[in-house]
Amino acid sequence: MAINDIISEIDINKLINDLQRLIKISSVSARKQNLEECANEIVKIMKEIGIFAELIYLNKNEKNEAPPIVYGEIKSKSNPNGKTILFYNHYDVQPEEPLDLWEFKPFEGIVKGNKIFGRGASDDKGELITRLSAVEYFLKHTGDVPVNIKFLVEGEEETGSNNISNYINKYKNKLKTDLVIWEFGYIDQKERPIISLGMKGLLYVEMTAIGPSRDVHSSLAVLIENPAWKLVQALSTLVNKDGTILVKDWHKEVKKLTEEEVKMIENEPFDEESLKKEYGIKKFVNNISGKNIKKALTSEPSCNISGLISGYTGEGAKTILPSKASVKIDFRLVPDMDPKLQFERLKKHLEENGFGDIQITNIHGESPGRTEINNPYVKLIQESANKVFGDSIISISSAGTGPMYDFINILKVPCISIGGTYIFSRIHSPNEYARIDLLEKTTKCIITIINDISKN
Amino acid sequence: MAINDIISEIDINKLINDLQRLIKISSVSARKQNLEECANEIVKIMKEIGIFAELIYLNKNEKNEAPPIVYGEIKSKSNPNGKTILFYNHYDVQPEEPLDLWEFKPFEGIVKGNKIFGRGASDDKGELITRLSAVEYFLKHTGDVPVNIKFLVEGEEETGSNNISNYINKYKNKLKTDLVIWEFGYIDQKERPIISLGMKGLLYVEMTAIGPSRDVHSSLAVLIENPAWKLVQALSTLVNKDGTILVKDWHKEVKKLTEEEVKMIENEPFDEESLKKEYGIKKFVNNISGKNIKKALTSEPSCNISGLISGYTGEGAKTILPSKASVKIDFRLVPDMDPKLQFERLKKHLEENGFGDIQITNIHGESPGRTEINNPYVKLIQESANKVFGDSIISISSAGTGPMYDFINILKVPCISIGGTYIFSRIHSPNEYARIDLLEKTTKCIITIINDISKN
Repeated sequence: MAINDIISEIDINKLINDLQRLIKISSVSARKQNLEECANEIVKIMKEIGIFAELIYLNKNEKNEAPPIVYGEIKSKSNPNGKTILFYNHYDVQPEEPLDLWEFKPFEGIVKGNKIFGRGASDDKGELITRLSAVEYFLKHTGDVPVNIKFLVEGEEETGSNNISNYINKYKNKLKTDLVIWEFGYIDQKERPIISLGMKGLLYVEMTAIGPSRDVHSSLAVLIENPAWKLVQALSTLVNKDGTILVKDWHKEVKKLTEEEVKMIENEPFDEESLKKEYGIKKFVNNISGKNIKKALTSEPSCNISGLISGYTGEGAKTILPSKASVKIDFRLVPDMDPKLQFERLKKHLEENGFGDIQITNIHGESPGRTEINNPYVKLIQESANKVFGDSIISISSAGTGPMYDFINILKVPCISIGGTYIFSRIHSPNEYARIDLLEKTTKCIITIINDISKN
Repeated sequence: MAINDIISEIDINKLINDLQRLIKISSVSARKQNLEECANEIVKIMKEIGIFAELIYLNKNEKNEAPPIVYGEIKSKSNPNGKTILFYNHYDVQPEEPLDLWEFKPFEGIVKGNKIFGRGASDDKGELITRLSAVEYFLKHTGDVPVNIKFLVEGEEETGSNNISNYINKYKNKLKTDLVIWEFGYIDQKERPIISLGMKGLLYVEMTAIGPSRDVHSSLAVLIENPAWKLVQALSTLVNKDGTILVKDWHKEVKKLTEEEVKMIENEPFDEESLKKEYGIKKFVNNISGKNIKKALTSEPSCNISGLISGYTGEGAKTILPSKASVKIDFRLVPDMDPKLQFERLKKHLEENGFGDIQITNIHGESPGRTEINNPYVKLIQESANKVFGDSIISISSAGTGPMYDFINILKVPCISIGGTYIFSRIHSPNEYARIDLLEKTTKCIITIINDISKN
């Protein structure tokens, strides 16, 4: 049977229906909410399709320690000794706040025109469904899959995949594979998939300055130290005005890009104007433009304030000196920065600058990871993608973060990102959506990749 | 009838009951909540006592423009051409947040032992009740008041008394008086009333840095300017580490203290250790101690962050670049700083430091005001207070803010603060309370002041 016959028959209504089943379970990992429920629903969907599926745990007696992983597997009957592909995805989502900015309810999966709205519609329930649909179509039309396929669907990606390395180590044999297809991939403004070979690392911290034991009338501000001021002053020592991180030795392990990598980055197109229009901004940080944009996204560390809170934030005026002030910061890391080492440097920086009494918590860290650009699967997957999308882009690293390092280093296999997340689909933001045409196209792309690998 | 006979018969249960009636009306001016309801309840209580009472407006056709003022008046039958005392108080309260830190419901007026808990229990419903009770006892026991008495109870004190100068100007004749007794007065740790002759001014602003049109995935932090960083950087230019305000010409109009004032301040006792214990702090800003504490409270301008918010402030981690960041700042002003002029200087400071695109709103301003220390009423009131409390302290200015400037400058009369707010009664904070013994003692003190002025 020719692959083109199969992919003309994708049941898009079934795909949307399965996606809605998952969106409706508000599996917010930041709040440890409905995680096992969502994992069980995925097991159910996998079984309905004909995939062996089970929940696996780090320690069954300590279920609450880490959310379970959905493990799925289907062997090729016709080619059991052939290649194995492992699909890595996640069933958890980002918090939905701020709720008042959602046009549609975040946990409904409402379809409007070519879009399905909801938290996780793209990231990552939509992407997961494209992988499942691809398998479903092989089974439906051939009664078999042409390669061995495994699924690892975790529940802590949005909070930093804190247990993924333990899971991979524990289930190393079960997870044996030739290739990992990563959980997502962007589609750019010209409708081309971006095939990404790496992910930045992350260090996520919370810093809290502690003041008086309760909020105080602000007339005492001449006497009592204000923790919000202390936090502002500590923060102002972390980066300079152009965003450069000032922590000592922060950039010490940053690996220089090779000439080949630089050339590749410089060839990556980037539509500055669409991005500016999408976010209503006039210029980029430090006026960077052209080739420097992709270079920054790929290879520059960053220090971002994700959240800031202190004192009275309601309507009107309240004259208090707050009892505490907190900030959440995410630092993106590039090879070969180590999140644990960077955390120690940050702590030392605070101490050395007179802010040793600010409490600092390492919320999580992930190491940056990259697959070699010369790995033969890179070319193969690009060719498969081009058959469906006409064109594609290779990126040496995504600007985002994921636990790629753990797969590359423990399973010793390449990890390649490809998916159908339109670049402006508002992941992590209100009104997240997935484009239905891209869900369909991505399913076709995954089908093509599976087919091409089976013939390789 | 001897004054001692009267003051031994204060009906404390009636006083508590009246105070509870007011606490139960959550008249939060920051939210324009239940203001007219509370004003009407005060009119009712005044009428029950036998005081003429009405609501007065700035412009009756634009009722919503400013909350009404409760005007109360009772002429002395025996001494109609004698002195007039105007009691200035307010019926609005600070917001009750953070709600979860209240041990008792903030709008109930629950009595436990010697304390009555609730927002406004001290500031300023408790103080108002002591004035009303004093009048009530004269009427009950003599059928008359020995001096003419007026009341002005406003509804915007906690949001900066934005309309008080217009009110005083409009009703200048109605409000004619010889003396204003201010709305509150602290009782220090040694149970002495602090008779304060001045109030600091205030400039309350909100500054908002605007970023992308919506929250963005923080992987774009290398490209898109983070408004939280911009706000932090702008804030870090406002004060240095020891709290000195760095805005150009900020201190230009600050009036030097006279030798007499300095001597008076240096004589003011201050219990450092109680304050530190109360708020769980180890040391004061810049390690100030001894005489410098009262000097700072009385005569130093300050710049206090009351509130700070940006991005994700919930549990766990969310990797976003926020769309905006806001801060609320209150600047305390001393004679002869002008809030409007200081606001212009602040705006110019932001512009000149590269933060001209940060939105800044002048939420309100109040000028600092002081009554001369040699005014004869100062001595008279201190002597009256000493009869009840045994001892008292004269302070040239409170560290707090109120519209004293408007009374002093429009009505051309002295304003003197005396009241029964225990220094740790948590005004503006969760679990605000009033000490019942001090409500009773303050009533006695006000009775004594009225009596002594009538004989003067």
